[in-house]
Amino acid sequence: MPTSTWTRHHVLSLADFTAAEYDIVLQTAASFQEVLSRRTKKVPALQGQVVANLFFEPSTRTRSSFELAAKRLSADTLNFAASTSSMTKGETILDTAKTYLAMGTDIMVIRHKEAGVPNAIAQEMDRLGVRVSVLNAGDGQHEHPSQGLLDLFTICSLIDPANPRLELLKGKKIAIVGDILHSRVARSNIWSLIASGAQVHLAAPPTLLPKFFAEYIFEDEPVPPGQLFIHWELEPALQNADFVMTLRLQKERMTAHLLPSLREYHQLFGITRAKLQRCQPNVKVLHPGPVNRGVEISSDLMDDPEFSLIQSQVTSGVAVRMALLYLIGSGKT
Amino acid sequence: MPTSTWTRHHVLSLADFTAAEYDIVLQTAASFQEVLSRRTKKVPALQGQVVANLFFEPSTRTRSSFELAAKRLSADTLNFAASTSSMTKGETILDTAKTYLAMGTDIMVIRHKEAGVPNAIAQEMDRLGVRVSVLNAGDGQHEHPSQGLLDLFTICSLIDPANPRLELLKGKKIAIVGDILHSRVARSNIWSLIASGAQVHLAAPPTLLPKFFAEYIFEDEPVPPGQLFIHWELEPALQNADFVMTLRLQKERMTAHLLPSLREYHQLFGITRAKLQRCQPNVKVLHPGPVNRGVEISSDLMDDPEFSLIQSQVTSGVAVRMALLYLIGSGKT
Amino acid sequence: MPTSTWTRHHVLSLADFTAAEYDIVLQTAASFQEVLSRRTKKVPALQGQVVANLFFEPSTRTRSSFELAAKRLSADTLNFAASTSSMTKGETILDTAKTYLAMGTDIMVIRHKEAGVPNAIAQEMDRLGVRVSVLNAGDGQHEHPSQGLLDLFTICSLIDPANPRLELLKGKKIAIVGDILHSRVARSNIWSLIASGAQVHLAAPPTLLPKFFAEYIFEDEPVPPGQLFIHWELEPALQNADFVMTLRLQKERMTAHLLPSLREYHQLFGITRAKLQRCQPNVKVLHPGPVNRGVEISSDLMDDPEFSLIQSQVTSGVAVRMALLYLIGSGKT
Repeated sequence: MPTSTWTRHHVLSLADFTAAEYDIVLQTAASFQEVLSRRTKKVPALQGQVVANLFFEPSTRTRSSFELAAKRLSADTLNFAASTSSMTKGETILDTAKTYLAMGTDIMVIRHKEAGVPNAIAQEMDRLGVRVSVLNAGDGQHEHPSQGLLDLFTICSLIDPANPRLELLKGKKIAIVGDILHSRVARSNIWSLIASGAQVHLAAPPTLLPKFFAEYIFEDEPVPPGQLFIHWELEPALQNADFVMTLRLQKERMTAHLLPSLREYHQLFGITRAKLQRCQPNVKVLHPGPVNRGVEISSDLMDDPEFSLIQSQVTSGVAVRMALLYLIGSGKT
Repeated sequence: MPTSTWTRHHVLSLADFTAAEYDIVLQTAASFQEVLSRRTKKVPALQGQVVANLFFEPSTRTRSSFELAAKRLSADTLNFAASTSSMTKGETILDTAKTYLAMGTDIMVIRHKEAGVPNAIAQEMDRLGVRVSVLNAGDGQHEHPSQGLLDLFTICSLIDPANPRLELLKGKKIAIVGDILHSRVARSNIWSLIASGAQVHLAAPPTLLPKFFAEYIFEDEPVPPGQLFIHWELEPALQNADFVMTLRLQKERMTAHLLPSLREYHQLFGITRAKLQRCQPNVKVLHPGPVNRGVEISSDLMDDPEFSLIQSQVTSGVAVRMALLYLIGSGKT
Repeated sequence: MPTSTWTRHHVLSLADFTAAEYDIVLQTAASFQEVLSRRTKKVPALQGQVVANLFFEPSTRTRSSFELAAKRLSADTLNFAASTSSMTKGETILDTAKTYLAMGTDIMVIRHKEAGVPNAIAQEMDRLGVRVSVLNAGDGQHEHPSQGLLDLFTICSLIDPANPRLELLKGKKIAIVGDILHSRVARSNIWSLIASGAQVHLAAPPTLLPKFFAEYIFEDEPVPPGQLFIHWELEPALQNADFVMTLRLQKERMTAHLLPSLREYHQLFGITRAKLQRCQPNVKVLHPGPVNRGVEISSDLMDDPEFSLIQSQVTSGVAVRMALLYLIGSGKT
């Protein structure tokens, strides 16, 4: 597998991922996808290494996916659930991370409701001069890089299963629909899609997609010309789209008065078979899950394998996380 | 091991188990019982396969038993705890199951407080044409087949440890005592005991054992003649009984005004050394656990190895669950 | 490894540990410390054995440490979390333990908020004549023997990494500072330090260190002459100390009116760089974690590797727990 050029020690964000790095992840994940189709789905790559899942914010789906990826690489796993932890005992997050470091953890997979926690832990590890790696499994509204990479892998493997690579998306039109403002998934996807040369069309109600969003994302860099578009209506985003990425709508947005009602949201921004008529004929729909059926996407569309890539995304998730653990873990010789 | 004739893909209920299937489970469990007596209690049968324990209803005992059974077959295990799950995030149960399917789960062990959930998931898996198997680990007041099978194995191995088989129970009198109405354990036991040719005597207060219970269980089929008896008093059920199966009394039955008091319940239906005088001299007592000491069974009787099979049931549980996982998992070549 | 003379079946308390036993644990832990520095940190010593972590009182740190120790010895692990358990279903603790026994558990690691629970379970196992071992992972305010042993190992390995042994502490002055009265860690440390021939100086406010404490600990035995000293001020305990063991301050002590305020506690008994001036020049500070930064110890001191052994303690914890599991588990041939 093409690990020779991989030098990244932590995976915290896709903002500074290079085209070469994307391609190494895609190719490594493709190799593991092949392993997963065998009857015995294990490889001894990380035998004797310890992967600690430090989920300060609870999650079943992402935690199970990382846990399974680690087990299939023959690593030992430790699960940390915030609810039963020392966090309630006054320990700082950095001290918790350092405890797992001192126990001999090789890779820390970290989810936290505050943006920046995985970065802070990675910085502390580097300051201490230790070889432990940090994988961001979702931090606040900041990033969810493994989700961005698995979405990328899902799309690219659909186009060319034997050789998924970034350039396959050049010129494709991809709509991202929903609660852009609060979505770490959207942020990670924007980075990878822009890097691929795709056209990214964001669509959401104004409360969930402020005018200044593009500048906010790209900070000091110029917004890439001809690559990022913002819409307060769904139709222009769907027009001739090759892929539609829907985002999960957090119910708590309702109580914050950012939305009129789930029903109205579905009417305006929910993806249905009828609305997909505007897209390319072979358009595909993605969703990071868990899905609120009938809100972000109509129930029948979600179950239609002709349109929905949702199951595919989950399967890709294990392969992509195996790839990330493998690329990072193999550096530890 | 005698797997050649095993064709069942899911284990959801004992209602349609054949005599041959019971015997295959009993013989396979006997082989694993022997493995468990060795110092190294592992076999590589399910290496590389993934067993997901999806416990929508919490349970320590049954989950640990299935987890240990899976680990001893060298499978990888994933635990899903409803409390920290996406269930609270609006995802449907079928979508949760399909997520674990997409991750690459081979066998799903499912417990849910609603009857029929494991069946619904199994049907969906079959509809999708995938090879994943579903094991019912207790659904509402419907069935708890692995408990029924481990009770059967416990009794049959006592009678003939070298060759436990269904016919050993022919003509035996077995009393099932307690909250029959709400018990999934009772339902699964009734199926296996009736199939064995045993005489099954149910005993409970009228509120916990309605008159129409037998018809309710057997639905369109005729109640088997001379095999199932209903009593609203304990004594006739115990008279000359070979085995007494006590059921767990859910404390919440009290608040529903189905019982006068725990003390009165114990006086009328609790099993004590004195009451066992009516039974066969070598009578044995079973209980699925966890036991309310001094309610369903007197504390001294529970601890008396001459009468109690309770510890034996727990040990049998691991062997029987290994057998089920093995029989189902080996079909996946 | 020097297991030939090890005969202890349970580890419940350090009160009756012999000098030879301390030395066997220290030497075995040193061997495992070496294993942990390798890339593949696993040994097959306990393959096929089952270690059940029965944590009736929640804990992340100690549970993870025992779990990792067991996995590195290639044991299978089962985790029991009190919150989702049968405990809420009326089952007694002994019945829960007997259930895990019947499932085939080889070693039970037990934490409970009541003192004496691990002893009671160990007695029951011995009464039943079974080979299962019990490791006390903290019981109420009684003992936390694995913590006492890891503190001992941390100190002794610092003095002579190649050959850590009890006699290295003879004549050393060791201060134990903080909530002595409620601390199971303090009790376990007092036993091992007294056994080593060290001078142990306890320092705490009078509410957390009653006058009769020494007699209370040593019960019928005489308080060892010239080995145990009690101070209601910090300074005499620190004077020329070689090691300072700080204890965790439970926040709930505040609400019980045993302390004026955290700030005042820190001023009087918190360890700072300035206060360490009274100690030996190469003094080291320990804390069992999790630390309330700025309460028991100043934040900068905690992070200073010249003084703090806190990270070292966590690493030692895995090695010492591997040693205990190994010594106990290897007896089961």
